[in-house]
Amino acid sequence: MQDFNEYLKEKKEIFEKRLFEIFDVVTENSPEILKKSMRYSLEAGGKRLRPILTYSVSEALGGNLHDALTIGCAIEFIHTYSLIHDDLPAMDNDDYRRGRLTNHKVFGEAVAILAGDALLTDAFFILSNSDFYEEISKEKQLKIIEIISKAVGSTGMVAGQVLDIIFENKFFTKDEVDKIHQNKTAKLIEASCLSGAIISTNDSMKIEKIRNFGFKIGLSFQIVDDLLDVIGDEKSLGKKVGKDMEKGKATYPACMGVEKSKEIAEKLVSEAKKEIEFLGEKGKILSSIADFFVKRVSWWEF
Amino acid sequence: MQDFNEYLKEKKEIFEKRLFEIFDVVTENSPEILKKSMRYSLEAGGKRLRPILTYSVSEALGGNLHDALTIGCAIEFIHTYSLIHDDLPAMDNDDYRRGRLTNHKVFGEAVAILAGDALLTDAFFILSNSDFYEEISKEKQLKIIEIISKAVGSTGMVAGQVLDIIFENKFFTKDEVDKIHQNKTAKLIEASCLSGAIISTNDSMKIEKIRNFGFKIGLSFQIVDDLLDVIGDEKSLGKKVGKDMEKGKATYPACMGVEKSKEIAEKLVSEAKKEIEFLGEKGKILSSIADFFVKRVSWWEF
Repeated sequence: MQDFNEYLKEKKEIFEKRLFEIFDVVTENSPEILKKSMRYSLEAGGKRLRPILTYSVSEALGGNLHDALTIGCAIEFIHTYSLIHDDLPAMDNDDYRRGRLTNHKVFGEAVAILAGDALLTDAFFILSNSDFYEEISKEKQLKIIEIISKAVGSTGMVAGQVLDIIFENKFFTKDEVDKIHQNKTAKLIEASCLSGAIISTNDSMKIEKIRNFGFKIGLSFQIVDDLLDVIGDEKSLGKKVGKDMEKGKATYPACMGVEKSKEIAEKLVSEAKKEIEFLGEKGKILSSIADFFVKRVSWWEF
Repeated sequence: MQDFNEYLKEKKEIFEKRLFEIFDVVTENSPEILKKSMRYSLEAGGKRLRPILTYSVSEALGGNLHDALTIGCAIEFIHTYSLIHDDLPAMDNDDYRRGRLTNHKVFGEAVAILAGDALLTDAFFILSNSDFYEEISKEKQLKIIEIISKAVGSTGMVAGQVLDIIFENKFFTKDEVDKIHQNKTAKLIEASCLSGAIISTNDSMKIEKIRNFGFKIGLSFQIVDDLLDVIGDEKSLGKKVGKDMEKGKATYPACMGVEKSKEIAEKLVSEAKKEIEFLGEKGKILSSIADFFVKRVSWWEF
């Protein structure tokens, strides 16, 4: 496990170096306050799991790692925008995230909304600008823009956010929670893996397996997130817990209890790991990441 | 002038047919409330000048009009998102736009923010999905995504919005107003024209001239917008006037008075028209659109 932690730490560093390199290029002529606000939230990043997934998938399939990092940067921009908007008073109204004040608490609502808008838009500039890539083909570059925009648009992440709000304090079924989680979280994690596969191989069977892997661990990730809100520790998480229940959110634990939710998350991860058996030894890291997606639960307790 | 009005009306209809065709495809699996909110603002559209510019530039240069309409749809999605976010309480706090309640007054702030996010994201799905195009090359498709994302991101439209807020009730110079207007408005209008040119020709001199044309009329458009807020008629505009002064916005009239502002807008349009002299007879419509960009001032008065 030590090795794996070292791996995550090292890739996080490699990724963040590239993230701020690209950030500086992209925002070179932006107003100071906008740059600060965007950077504030980019710096507040967690483990960078999404870009690391793109990277590790490419690594396992022998793809170009420079290009994987570029795509990872765009994905992290998008993930960061979603957190900024999600925290707004009109949305989840959170004052803290990862132990720091949320963007709008520091920069005000107007700048926070605009910083989110800019991160989302700039993500597509990163994805479409060939200067940020080494060897990707135009066709694959376009395909990845299509996949990512689909994963986070009106039938993806934004749909999930809308459903999340709609079902607050309403009766909900397992199917509805599934739909929220798939859209809100799983699709972007799926897209992170899928992009890594697309730049690395033309084998559609392999690509499909990686896609399934991503979707399954993505869904388990959100289930675990829900669980952490019930059984997690405020200090380790850097945010308040118990908020979901307070707000009557449609979550897995609320729907089927803690034990059953853990079971489902573990089952998803074990299915995900089966999908990447074709990678053999090369799939070891991805397998560990999948485990990590559920084991976070107990890790936080130590 | 009758002919030109007919032209605008006809192109508006052609464009809107395609807009809602594409909208229905893109949002087929979106939550109902999100779809309604997005559609509400798309339907509240004005003259559709940006997509018509893409169309008319392509028409003048013999480009594929189907593809021009696709790009126009994405641009209108982006323009619409910017209006929804701009109207939010944390931003300009407007209750009405074009005579109708603003999005957040109808759907609430959370859904309005998300509808804006979805429109912006879906714009890039439209631009990257080959099903929406007839003959554009992958290379040009990517180029257009790059141009548009640049025009509206952290060094484009969003930068303009941020500066617009920063300079409220502050001392400002003409250079600063220029910078706000260029970013807030001119760059997207420039990109609308430029995209039409790119899909229609490989002649870089022609493309450059069309770009200049777009930028100049784009800047004049914002100056006229500022003027309408001072001398326009509330009923014809469908929104309150005098708001800029009330809020201490950095505008042309506030900077150099009404007459001088009119003069600059007219000069820009006349320079823009010079840029497209190379089109000869085929540039007639673009020339009329350029005139229309400033003549709106007096038109509203009748």
